[in-house]
Amino acid sequence: MATFIELSNNIQNKFQKQVEGKKFHAAAELFRKLHPADRGKIFRELKSSQQKGFLLNLEIEEIADLFDELDDQETFSAAQVLPLPFLADVVDDMDPDEAADLLGDLSGQDVRRTISLMDEPEDVLPLLRYPDETAGGRMTTDYLVLKPDEDTHHAIEYLREMELESDVPYYLFVVENDGTLVGVTGLRELVYAPPDHLIRDIMNKHVISIEAMRDQEEAARLMIHYDLAALPVVTKKGRLIGVISHDDILDVMDDETTEDIYRLASVTDTGLEPESNIFKQFKGRLPWLLLNTITALFGSWIISNYEDLFLQVAVLAFFQSVVASQGGNAASQSVAMIVRSLALGKLEIKKVWPVLLRQLAVGMFLGVVVGLIVGTGVGLWQENPYLGLVLGLALLGNMLVASLVGTLGPLLLELLNQDPAMASSVLVTALTDSIGFLIFLSLARLFLPFIQKYV
Amino acid sequence: MATFIELSNNIQNKFQKQVEGKKFHAAAELFRKLHPADRGKIFRELKSSQQKGFLLNLEIEEIADLFDELDDQETFSAAQVLPLPFLADVVDDMDPDEAADLLGDLSGQDVRRTISLMDEPEDVLPLLRYPDETAGGRMTTDYLVLKPDEDTHHAIEYLREMELESDVPYYLFVVENDGTLVGVTGLRELVYAPPDHLIRDIMNKHVISIEAMRDQEEAARLMIHYDLAALPVVTKKGRLIGVISHDDILDVMDDETTEDIYRLASVTDTGLEPESNIFKQFKGRLPWLLLNTITALFGSWIISNYEDLFLQVAVLAFFQSVVASQGGNAASQSVAMIVRSLALGKLEIKKVWPVLLRQLAVGMFLGVVVGLIVGTGVGLWQENPYLGLVLGLALLGNMLVASLVGTLGPLLLELLNQDPAMASSVLVTALTDSIGFLIFLSLARLFLPFIQKYV
Repeated sequence: MATFIELSNNIQNKFQKQVEGKKFHAAAELFRKLHPADRGKIFRELKSSQQKGFLLNLEIEEIADLFDELDDQETFSAAQVLPLPFLADVVDDMDPDEAADLLGDLSGQDVRRTISLMDEPEDVLPLLRYPDETAGGRMTTDYLVLKPDEDTHHAIEYLREMELESDVPYYLFVVENDGTLVGVTGLRELVYAPPDHLIRDIMNKHVISIEAMRDQEEAARLMIHYDLAALPVVTKKGRLIGVISHDDILDVMDDETTEDIYRLASVTDTGLEPESNIFKQFKGRLPWLLLNTITALFGSWIISNYEDLFLQVAVLAFFQSVVASQGGNAASQSVAMIVRSLALGKLEIKKVWPVLLRQLAVGMFLGVVVGLIVGTGVGLWQENPYLGLVLGLALLGNMLVASLVGTLGPLLLELLNQDPAMASSVLVTALTDSIGFLIFLSLARLFLPFIQKYV
Repeated sequence: MATFIELSNNIQNKFQKQVEGKKFHAAAELFRKLHPADRGKIFRELKSSQQKGFLLNLEIEEIADLFDELDDQETFSAAQVLPLPFLADVVDDMDPDEAADLLGDLSGQDVRRTISLMDEPEDVLPLLRYPDETAGGRMTTDYLVLKPDEDTHHAIEYLREMELESDVPYYLFVVENDGTLVGVTGLRELVYAPPDHLIRDIMNKHVISIEAMRDQEEAARLMIHYDLAALPVVTKKGRLIGVISHDDILDVMDDETTEDIYRLASVTDTGLEPESNIFKQFKGRLPWLLLNTITALFGSWIISNYEDLFLQVAVLAFFQSVVASQGGNAASQSVAMIVRSLALGKLEIKKVWPVLLRQLAVGMFLGVVVGLIVGTGVGLWQENPYLGLVLGLALLGNMLVASLVGTLGPLLLELLNQDPAMASSVLVTALTDSIGFLIFLSLARLFLPFIQKYV
């Protein structure tokens, strides 16, 4: 028997052919047979012109479900082709959290007109108040609540009537009349409790929640730490206003990972992809490269102060980059480890001293080994023991500098409430490069008479 | 009213004081009041000597629950202090997947003795067959199954008797008598179906599953794509043998992110933390640095072929590093974007040409801007227009090389079924450094008479 995945791939291939033949109606029939997640995937792969022709063959509800699957940018561009009254109906049918994100991307005028054309804007409006990156920006308002003084039998009947299609079916939150969150329970507890028990008596009163304005990453970390499939979002006064579900957290984690990896690699715009618009990529990559021209030229200026050395011993010019490059790599290693430990909540900022000492010790051992190997190798290659000595010592020194900079850089940013991943390669290698040149060339000046003897 | 988090922090502080006063019995009382996740957290923060004294004050079941919360390494070191017969009882009570991981870390002799002392090794033994990084290595055997020909009323009664404490309470999997997975349903569907319906009639037959030997990251991507809270794991013949739950996926994602970030930063051992043993850190960081000594010395060798240039125009030695450093940064940017796109499944390998052309275009624009700025700046600073020209052209050339290497490097590794993140800074910068030196110095030789006019 074919597996679900095989069947799905089969339908997707047929869909492609129909779309290429511009048979959008037949394509829509195939589309309906797919899992919502796969509908998102194949729609994403269409060209803009195909997307437009295809969308007009779908029902409003189907477009809403599709938009719920796409990411914000994709939804926004697909929404552009729909007339506003039609779009308003779609937004009405979307998940409130996705609908809010879409409205947030429209121009001010379009937002007002769309909202005025919607049948039920109440679900979405409260969500517009929270920035995308906060817990409030990630939550949905599509969840069910029980009252503490209901009995379990009535609660089950109530849930049956609701025919729950919510994102968060596993938890049932319990709120007082004023909306204050007081407990959590589940369908299992309802079903297996005697029918006349009160919700108050079966609910778990130790409910973990987060305030709406907190960062989404904090929400993700709470859900991971406590293994929660859903996290209630509350106001400062403790009123329940939304719920974040486990699949939102996966999106948050993907976003945060991209952000860390991009920042460590000095890419400013974390929304960039290899296939993004060329000008957008240019803009999102230029800032750090420009900063690097300044720091690299600072390195050049340091070297320029030793011009006389090169005229006497040109061989020095061969090896200054080795010192810089080893330092840069060692510093990147330290930065990666510190940034990751901070992100996972494994490293506390008060432990800065033991961590720094340990990194310096590791840097020293690495420096001794690399310095010995390179120093000996170059000493033999150039038949110049003092050149080898200077190079080895410079490597050791720069490894220690790399440990210092690579450890303190991200920790300092964390202390200043900045993203530690901003201690990216550009900043850290700028420092290790410059200091590396300085150490190598000043040692070379010190030992110049000895080096010259062997040239 | 104090929130859950505040109460929990309060208890944790009191716990700390009791442990510091070596009042382990009182500490254990406080410990029991905490959420399991927080129990793991405070235990982790104890010194080894404190862990030992404290563990002996807990019940077997409490230790098992605690071990379920710790990561593999932490569980292993805590388990060392327990006598084997006692440990066997603990392992009996642990989640089967965590128990299997712990057994996998023990020495062969200890594994055999522990298993022989266990009451119920049946749950754990099948899990020992799958490597840690596979779907089978992540799954638990602690789940419930229904038969297609049961009726819903009996199924509910059966579940009530089981008093389910499973990791995966949201899905109920349906298997034939030979264990073949044929469907999935949930408590909600059971409760709201008429009592005499057969499971076969209410179950969802399109069940998404994964084979046990597939990579855990693939399992994670399936669960994320289809928004699954649990993923059934099957044999090649389609028999259900385990289930992966959503919180396992979060752990997988954390592991994979660490792996990517570490590899991009040339850290070999992805288990390293800033506080790891110094020698372990040394061993986990040395390999790429050693490789870098070779590639950096190759760069030196390229430069050494231009020795005569430095003796004539020492100023060239100031700027060769600028070319290398800009190329390295631009290449790191490309690598980060490609690696991340591949990890998120957004980039398909068949699209290599359009992506490469686009990256080259971006690299060209970046090269033109950076080359113009640096070339003009240095030309004015050194009052040497031809030096500026050579530097600007070399920057443009090396930016194109960086785009090429930074794009093709990770794509090539992906094609070879290797981790694209292995195209780490060391490899990529080695290439851009060497080629950067080559371009700059050969252009300098070409323009030497003109450059010398202004020196």
